[in-house]
Amino acid sequence: MSGLVPATVRIIGTGLIGGSLGMALGAAGADVQVQDISPGTTALAVELGVGRVPAPGDPDPELVIVAAPPDAAAQLIAEALRTWPNALVTDAASVKGIVLDGVARAVDPEMLTRYIGAHPMAGREISGVIAARGDLFRGRPFVVVPHATTDPEAVALLQGIATAIGSVPVVLPAAEHDTAVAHVSHVPQVLSSLLATTLLDPDERALALAGQGLRDTTRIADSDPRLWVEILGANAAAVTAVLEGVRERMDDVLAALATMPGDPDPAVGSRRALAELISDGNRGVRRIPGKHGGASDAFATVTVLVPDRPGELGRLFTEMGEIGVNLEDFRLEHNYGRQVGLGHLSVDASREELLTRELSARGWTVAES
Amino acid sequence: MSGLVPATVRIIGTGLIGGSLGMALGAAGADVQVQDISPGTTALAVELGVGRVPAPGDPDPELVIVAAPPDAAAQLIAEALRTWPNALVTDAASVKGIVLDGVARAVDPEMLTRYIGAHPMAGREISGVIAARGDLFRGRPFVVVPHATTDPEAVALLQGIATAIGSVPVVLPAAEHDTAVAHVSHVPQVLSSLLATTLLDPDERALALAGQGLRDTTRIADSDPRLWVEILGANAAAVTAVLEGVRERMDDVLAALATMPGDPDPAVGSRRALAELISDGNRGVRRIPGKHGGASDAFATVTVLVPDRPGELGRLFTEMGEIGVNLEDFRLEHNYGRQVGLGHLSVDASREELLTRELSARGWTVAES
Repeated sequence: MSGLVPATVRIIGTGLIGGSLGMALGAAGADVQVQDISPGTTALAVELGVGRVPAPGDPDPELVIVAAPPDAAAQLIAEALRTWPNALVTDAASVKGIVLDGVARAVDPEMLTRYIGAHPMAGREISGVIAARGDLFRGRPFVVVPHATTDPEAVALLQGIATAIGSVPVVLPAAEHDTAVAHVSHVPQVLSSLLATTLLDPDERALALAGQGLRDTTRIADSDPRLWVEILGANAAAVTAVLEGVRERMDDVLAALATMPGDPDPAVGSRRALAELISDGNRGVRRIPGKHGGASDAFATVTVLVPDRPGELGRLFTEMGEIGVNLEDFRLEHNYGRQVGLGHLSVDASREELLTRELSARGWTVAES
Repeated sequence: MSGLVPATVRIIGTGLIGGSLGMALGAAGADVQVQDISPGTTALAVELGVGRVPAPGDPDPELVIVAAPPDAAAQLIAEALRTWPNALVTDAASVKGIVLDGVARAVDPEMLTRYIGAHPMAGREISGVIAARGDLFRGRPFVVVPHATTDPEAVALLQGIATAIGSVPVVLPAAEHDTAVAHVSHVPQVLSSLLATTLLDPDERALALAGQGLRDTTRIADSDPRLWVEILGANAAAVTAVLEGVRERMDDVLAALATMPGDPDPAVGSRRALAELISDGNRGVRRIPGKHGGASDAFATVTVLVPDRPGELGRLFTEMGEIGVNLEDFRLEHNYGRQVGLGHLSVDASREELLTRELSARGWTVAES
């Protein structure tokens, strides 16, 4: 090993993920050997700078990365463990429990200590090595997935590799990983696809009313059926658990809607069920970590009317200082046809209420959020 | 009337939508009178340039726009029809059937001819007149909603107003409007909120794996519970019809997942059910009209590897011309750590297959989409 990355890395499967890992590891100083089931893909990977074709007499790889779909990964990992008796073997499949089970069935317990799972999380709208790029994983989570008998040094080694290629290492056991990706990726995919299927019915005049909300919620519905059949099938239990909760709550929503409208006095419970759906959703979405790297909850935006007169902005900042609230970020919005602007003040969320109250008391007009 | 907009317009309810309509109509030449149930809001609207407070001796308005929530709109519309016997009265509520029914119950058939519904579609993340802007409706659909006895001239008048403020008029009866917004707005809201509620359970380490897909699908879940209880309640029948289709299909997905994984030979029907979910979703999302104003289906992107050598880009464009395919748009992507770029060629969708085949035949490497 030189620095954080092993001296010699073998990448098996040079698609988008394998190709990008090769580029990133090569840039970090590793000698990258590549192989793919398709000779044409291997040749293209070499041409694109992913790595080189292994030659007779090459040293054995210190690390083998199997970058193949979940249904093919276990077999390739088992072969690699047998072929290179001193190598650490990892993989990049997006579901980990099924891969670990497959490897554990295929090799003896001694060999299994040299296997550690990984899931470098990234993707883009085009696939294949042609879309590979060395910065694909930059700033993205790199999940390191040890099992009960994984060599403890392997965890540190993969964390170092993740850091070397600019991604953020996160250590999770396979079951926790699979539940996590069911929540943040697989169930969102199912719901986005379900929503998009409802767009097959309406006529074009209806679809002409589509706005950004529909575009955002259905963007990921334009994804590869073959890939997603594998992923959903491989993580069926975790996806089912989350999805059944969604179905249960959807039944509550449908029951609430059944008492409305027309009914001038719908059951109080119906209005409450709908309000709780939306407000629980508010709380859920605010738990997603934000750009600041912490929870997006950590920052709040207070929007204030700023008259278009000299000195008003200075007065705003001075009074914020007097109130004792730090400004994390600021954006001034100038509106078409108006004599005023909107100042969007980003502040620590715990200070939002204080700032809103104090600015209002000092005569500023603060927007309802 | 002077030009496309009436000389005198009364706006009742100066929130985000009423305020923005006032600014836009004022800029288009109308004399805009404003009133709001809250004197403070009225005063702020005047200060922000939405319009002026009506004075004794003012001429009657030619057009009255009620910009109030669905549950309050019908009563205000009926009052306006009685107060100004020569005025055309419209509203901006986001659900139309329930408003029309309420007005029809409240006034005699003769008066009803002077009512026409409208739904200028726009929104932003902050509410109230403070967030109003004269360009809010620019480039957005403005639905004109006549009923069976609406004065035919009223349709043309509202279409003219929509055009004058830069939006795109679309004429739809109330029932069709309500089904359309159930599809493009209300059901997406429910599903996004349902998805966001699943984020209350996982721990922070799981949520740290969130990517852009989860952010996009849940962005609209951060919306106002009070507003959405009104909207969903007012459009309960249309929302229910679409949502029941979603629940039915979700049951199919759950049934398919129940046969996987672990089962080395899952029922063929299970894999097919999941593949069809994703591919039907592909077809649905591609029906959403794109930036070009037509269906996004109209254009396709073909991605080609462009070696970083002088003349390669020129050769690509020349050969596209020889193949006979017009370039609608082009973007060159330079990748970190690579000696090649990716050329993203936007072309007429009907030419995608031809271009892919011909470029491949001429030795270009074309990405799998």
